[in-house]
Amino acid sequence: RLKEGRALAQDVWSIFNALNLPADCINLGQGYMNFPPPAWVTEAAEEALRTVAPNHYSHPKGRIRLREAIKKFYGPQLGRELDVESEILVTSGANEGQYSVFTAFLEQGDEVIMFEPFFDQYLPSVTFNGGKPVYVPLHPPAHDISKPTSDDWTIDIAELRRAVTPRTKMIIVNTPHNPVGKVFTKKELEDIAAVAEEFNLLVMSDEVYDCLVFDGKEHVRIANLPGMWDRTVTVCSAGKAFAATGWRVGWLIGPASIIQPTLAATTRIVFCTNSPLQEAAASGLEQAKERQYFEIQRAEYAERRKILADVFDQLGLKYTLPEGSYFILLDISNVKFPDDYPFPESVLGRGRDFRACWFIAMEIGVSSIPVSEFYCEEHANIGEAYARFAFCKDVDTLGKAAERLKNLK
Amino acid sequence: RLKEGRALAQDVWSIFNALNLPADCINLGQGYMNFPPPAWVTEAAEEALRTVAPNHYSHPKGRIRLREAIKKFYGPQLGRELDVESEILVTSGANEGQYSVFTAFLEQGDEVIMFEPFFDQYLPSVTFNGGKPVYVPLHPPAHDISKPTSDDWTIDIAELRRAVTPRTKMIIVNTPHNPVGKVFTKKELEDIAAVAEEFNLLVMSDEVYDCLVFDGKEHVRIANLPGMWDRTVTVCSAGKAFAATGWRVGWLIGPASIIQPTLAATTRIVFCTNSPLQEAAASGLEQAKERQYFEIQRAEYAERRKILADVFDQLGLKYTLPEGSYFILLDISNVKFPDDYPFPESVLGRGRDFRACWFIAMEIGVSSIPVSEFYCEEHANIGEAYARFAFCKDVDTLGKAAERLKNLK
Ligand SMILES: CSCCC(=O)C(=O)O
Ligand SMILES: CSCCC(=O)C(=O)O
Repeated sequence: RLKEGRALAQDVWSIFNALNLPADCINLGQGYMNFPPPAWVTEAAEEALRTVAPNHYSHPKGRIRLREAIKKFYGPQLGRELDVESEILVTSGANEGQYSVFTAFLEQGDEVIMFEPFFDQYLPSVTFNGGKPVYVPLHPPAHDISKPTSDDWTIDIAELRRAVTPRTKMIIVNTPHNPVGKVFTKKELEDIAAVAEEFNLLVMSDEVYDCLVFDGKEHVRIANLPGMWDRTVTVCSAGKAFAATGWRVGWLIGPASIIQPTLAATTRIVFCTNSPLQEAAASGLEQAKERQYFEIQRAEYAERRKILADVFDQLGLKYTLPEGSYFILLDISNVKFPDDYPFPESVLGRGRDFRACWFIAMEIGVSSIPVSEFYCEEHANIGEAYARFAFCKDVDTLGKAAERLKNLK
Repeated sequence: RLKEGRALAQDVWSIFNALNLPADCINLGQGYMNFPPPAWVTEAAEEALRTVAPNHYSHPKGRIRLREAIKKFYGPQLGRELDVESEILVTSGANEGQYSVFTAFLEQGDEVIMFEPFFDQYLPSVTFNGGKPVYVPLHPPAHDISKPTSDDWTIDIAELRRAVTPRTKMIIVNTPHNPVGKVFTKKELEDIAAVAEEFNLLVMSDEVYDCLVFDGKEHVRIANLPGMWDRTVTVCSAGKAFAATGWRVGWLIGPASIIQPTLAATTRIVFCTNSPLQEAAASGLEQAKERQYFEIQRAEYAERRKILADVFDQLGLKYTLPEGSYFILLDISNVKFPDDYPFPESVLGRGRDFRACWFIAMEIGVSSIPVSEFYCEEHANIGEAYARFAFCKDVDTLGKAAERLKNLK
């Protein structure tokens, strides 16, 4: 259990926590905003706090107002009337949502396939629940591509098929992808879907950055592909949608056959999700369309992305232009730092990227996240080539960060 | 896993959810208040919602303001300077807190001893994490006691000792006890502590009702007994303390040797607890003493308890007068109901108490919780003799409930 391997080591979020870095370091590490959620969203929570029911246990499925809002918002995208009683489950953040899916479905030794790099929390979520992670590469851009985008991180469907064994229970899809920013194409998702169907696998589709897709790219939901609804659970996040990562409100959408067992798990693990912030999330979804909130937000994030992309271009540093999410991967293979720098213990035991990110945070004044943490131990060396910078910050802050990053060379 | 036994069955909270009962049924089932938290507590959350940081991820350990408030509030009670970095962990409700302790410490097949009846969530929390629950009876009052109190539910320490095997990892203590309301005496806790020491066991002490102890009874913390700090984790709840069960804010207090592995588990399961309501909980703890909040609250609950106790006395129905918590157990052995009543499926498959509680809810108009759910399947028959009524409601509502309950005879 916890006593084994990586799970025991300090997680990357705690090591690169702002608290461990100089106060004036600009934090482009963990993905959270340096601005608050919109006031028209938080108002609903303030009102909830002055009322009786929304201060008390919600139904473990989630408050009905939020489930209705989810139904209205996602139903049209999924081309179906969602049943608020059996096809929607509010969770204590997307993180607890995916964790509970594993608790509900994994038997000891079941295998879960994930594309690597992967959001680091998947690994302990699988192993804590008795499962075995199996990795299929998301191949980095070929070296001769001078200006790669996240599309240049590619999958080989034959590798996915070969990874399937009789113990395979589930495939994790993550689009837009953290940390690569890749928005999986319809073709890629169709190929993955075909494998899921052929081997009768479940799909956990983590789409927490679904509202952040750029350059006219289309966010395709694998649940929408023919035959896939019945085997897919889609994971969403209010934190990403409404600049409120500390609310711990997320939701799962899927067939009753997946949602009901997951409800049993989430009911035992957290019992229910906090009520006041469910009201706020509901209010956000209810008003988003009329306010063109997500359209405006996408444009703002495209501008934020450009600030970092521009400075990397100026410096001639290679990076992956992300088509989605709020992360950008910088190739740090050529970033130099002294070997005898006074690195802390927590960083010394890890890959070169941990040291590079630490050095950049301390000496350049901008923090980022080492990408080897998104690889299993055996493949960590691939991730060591990258640092992940988050651009979910206001334009001023990103501008200052860009200024500082000019000292990278 | 979930596919086995009780864990798969619908949980009692969902069956006896207010939504399944007539709208005018008075809800004394699940323990939540029909009044809001104090305004001086919620204000801090409203302020947090208008600020940046408390809308975003908190440190997985919890926001520092809350950890400092916990240190100040509990430190004197525990007779020690708590270390906010390693001895306090904020969790997404007490429920997730206890769950994460099991995730952190149980290896496949480890045994966890609990006194039976037990808060029903312990059972799946143990089994989902690979553990095996072992039950030691909390013996019901002898039949010749005409007016039992929760003190008359007794433990036999020889039974506890006999339950220990080489696989025993942990003992769960729950004081004040849900559903019995028993406040364990210092002597009882010393006896339990001696067993824990003798066999080198951990103790999870669920004290979420620590603020609700009546009749001048003393709430003793087992962590305070000589030698026990190092093997005990104490589980607390903002929901119970501040009439805010829907906030999902709780905390664990214990030695670094327990808190640190549990932090690793909670970080993976929920990542962190919602931030705005941590600010409110902190504000509550900061002001409680000056406002004599807990003293006043205790007096209010004693009055609420009396309303139900009085009507049961008038009716000559046997019940357990609870010394703590906000639950009162009514002996329903003699409550009659027609066998051919149109009971729903969910109730029919369970004990007599499920049918009795359903009947009382539908025909008397007051809902309660069947107590067989707090026993393992083999011993459920003992619990069938009781229904649990919650008195965490305002005096008016309890008065109306008492009026209706007069029809029980
Ligand atoms: C556990 S951190 C949550 C995800 C995120 O924001 C990140 O990848 O930075
Ligand atoms: C899972 S319900 C939480 C505990 C409680 O309030 C109860 O026992 O009624």
